[in-house]
Amino acid sequence: MKDIVVGIDIGGTITKIGLVTKDGQCLRQNSFRTRDFPVFREFLQNIKTHVEKLQDEYFEPVNILGFGVGAPNASYHRGTLEYPANLAWKGVTPFVEEFQKLYDVPIKITNDANVAALGEMIYGNAKGMKDFIVITLGTGLGSGIVANGELIMGHDGFAGELGHFAVVDEGRLTGLGVKGGLEAYVSATGLKRTIMHMLGYYREDSRFRSIAFNDLHGEEISKAAEEGDFIALKAFDYTGEILGRALANFVTFSQPEAIFLLGGLASSGKLIFEPTIKYMEENLITVYRGKVKLLPSGMEEKNSAILGAAALGWKDIL
Amino acid sequence: MKDIVVGIDIGGTITKIGLVTKDGQCLRQNSFRTRDFPVFREFLQNIKTHVEKLQDEYFEPVNILGFGVGAPNASYHRGTLEYPANLAWKGVTPFVEEFQKLYDVPIKITNDANVAALGEMIYGNAKGMKDFIVITLGTGLGSGIVANGELIMGHDGFAGELGHFAVVDEGRLTGLGVKGGLEAYVSATGLKRTIMHMLGYYREDSRFRSIAFNDLHGEEISKAAEEGDFIALKAFDYTGEILGRALANFVTFSQPEAIFLLGGLASSGKLIFEPTIKYMEENLITVYRGKVKLLPSGMEEKNSAILGAAALGWKDIL
Repeated sequence: MKDIVVGIDIGGTITKIGLVTKDGQCLRQNSFRTRDFPVFREFLQNIKTHVEKLQDEYFEPVNILGFGVGAPNASYHRGTLEYPANLAWKGVTPFVEEFQKLYDVPIKITNDANVAALGEMIYGNAKGMKDFIVITLGTGLGSGIVANGELIMGHDGFAGELGHFAVVDEGRLTGLGVKGGLEAYVSATGLKRTIMHMLGYYREDSRFRSIAFNDLHGEEISKAAEEGDFIALKAFDYTGEILGRALANFVTFSQPEAIFLLGGLASSGKLIFEPTIKYMEENLITVYRGKVKLLPSGMEEKNSAILGAAALGWKDIL
Repeated sequence: MKDIVVGIDIGGTITKIGLVTKDGQCLRQNSFRTRDFPVFREFLQNIKTHVEKLQDEYFEPVNILGFGVGAPNASYHRGTLEYPANLAWKGVTPFVEEFQKLYDVPIKITNDANVAALGEMIYGNAKGMKDFIVITLGTGLGSGIVANGELIMGHDGFAGELGHFAVVDEGRLTGLGVKGGLEAYVSATGLKRTIMHMLGYYREDSRFRSIAFNDLHGEEISKAAEEGDFIALKAFDYTGEILGRALANFVTFSQPEAIFLLGGLASSGKLIFEPTIKYMEENLITVYRGKVKLLPSGMEEKNSAILGAAALGWKDIL
């Protein structure tokens, strides 16, 4: 009999589920498309189906001690999802209250990037760090902020919504209506929007002149940039400029030792890291210059969100 | 024999010194002009002279247990002042190391707004709050950020330099060269710069058309606005817009329960509070709207900085 916590990462596109032991071993994991379940109760029922399947698949019986969940716009204090920009469930969804009807064990939820930050602190590259920021780059942009060795939760449990941090005057709208909000520029969707902007702004040829917005994918943009596509290179430089400027502002707030980038866009490697570091440094005041590390996540991409979510559950239980 | 900590607030214009008991009573206080001492050792010697004078003046002997100091651009971890924009001492000044030559008791230093935040938490309007931000509006703009009940210090002791938070694209330069930095707009100096901008932008008459920049003072601008001066009213509205937008961004970071304004500009009352609240709310995402209080400091203006600085010293001793 293995004691485990179920770690769940709810993303705008994919929901991931894993059975995780106390020492951070993910025994089994699975995933499904979040948007296939626009009715919230059916979404929860589907999680249950998946969890039972994972339990059945494992070669010995597993004992579920609790759940840890990461989701966009989740309130740790209230156990709710509130006005998520990138999910189908509108308004306020009482996640913990509803899920508790299916499982009578402790269930903890927080925003998906907080969960990533916990994972990074316990299992990843932030081991031993007391001040750092994790930026998750998916469909949108999430953030988890650690200061004095503790996750900043906020008065209402909603700290770290840096996707809606305004970074360009009168700029692009985010899904929540913030003008010039960071995730409208720095995310999978933001990069696609920047490709469109660059196609309009420049006259140069590009493979993207024959691809429609809806057919564009992030990996293609990385690939094109690596092959020297003018528009793709401009798009990465601009994305790094916007992110670098925003990070310089974040530093004036909490002066982190390091900032971690993870998720799809981060896996573009130096295409995104190099311009971001350059523009961040240009915008830092002397006292911060050369002191803030920009690092990739130290966790295996596929498991980081699950392990982080499970860490939230384990933290609560232990 | 009274046990006290000496609280010292070093501002761009005035340095304040006070003898403070454990329960926050300021027995005696004094002040002098910071800029009269461009040589750092003479500045420290002058502090010593003032402290001895205050000790002599008090009717019973006082025993100095330690010092708590608030100053712009101070590092708590290193005990230094580093590249302050509004002080005469350039580069890195080893404050604690030098001061320790004059006094062999514990000496703690942090940025002046951190000190104000500590004071607000212990003696002021933030009693019982775990998440709040203090914005000090003097010659420049300082900030102290409390999250999870703790001051955010930063990896290097330099968190909370929000005066250099960039808020306007390609905007005015701060003393440290940040384009569009907050304190270039929201501070005594910033308000004067905005008066100049408005005199250039509008054609309306104003009492400020016959006053030179160097002869302008903050209190006059408040007075003019209260009397309906068009340019002064525009200047306050614009200052509130810039501050409100910045505060909305700060909320996405740490979601404070309250933001406190203190210092000269804050004493303009509703002239600054009303537009700031309006523009902050306009720029908040739904989940934060109507939840963040903008409040005046709960401490008597003249003593808040001294009491906060002393609190830092007492915190260390107890």
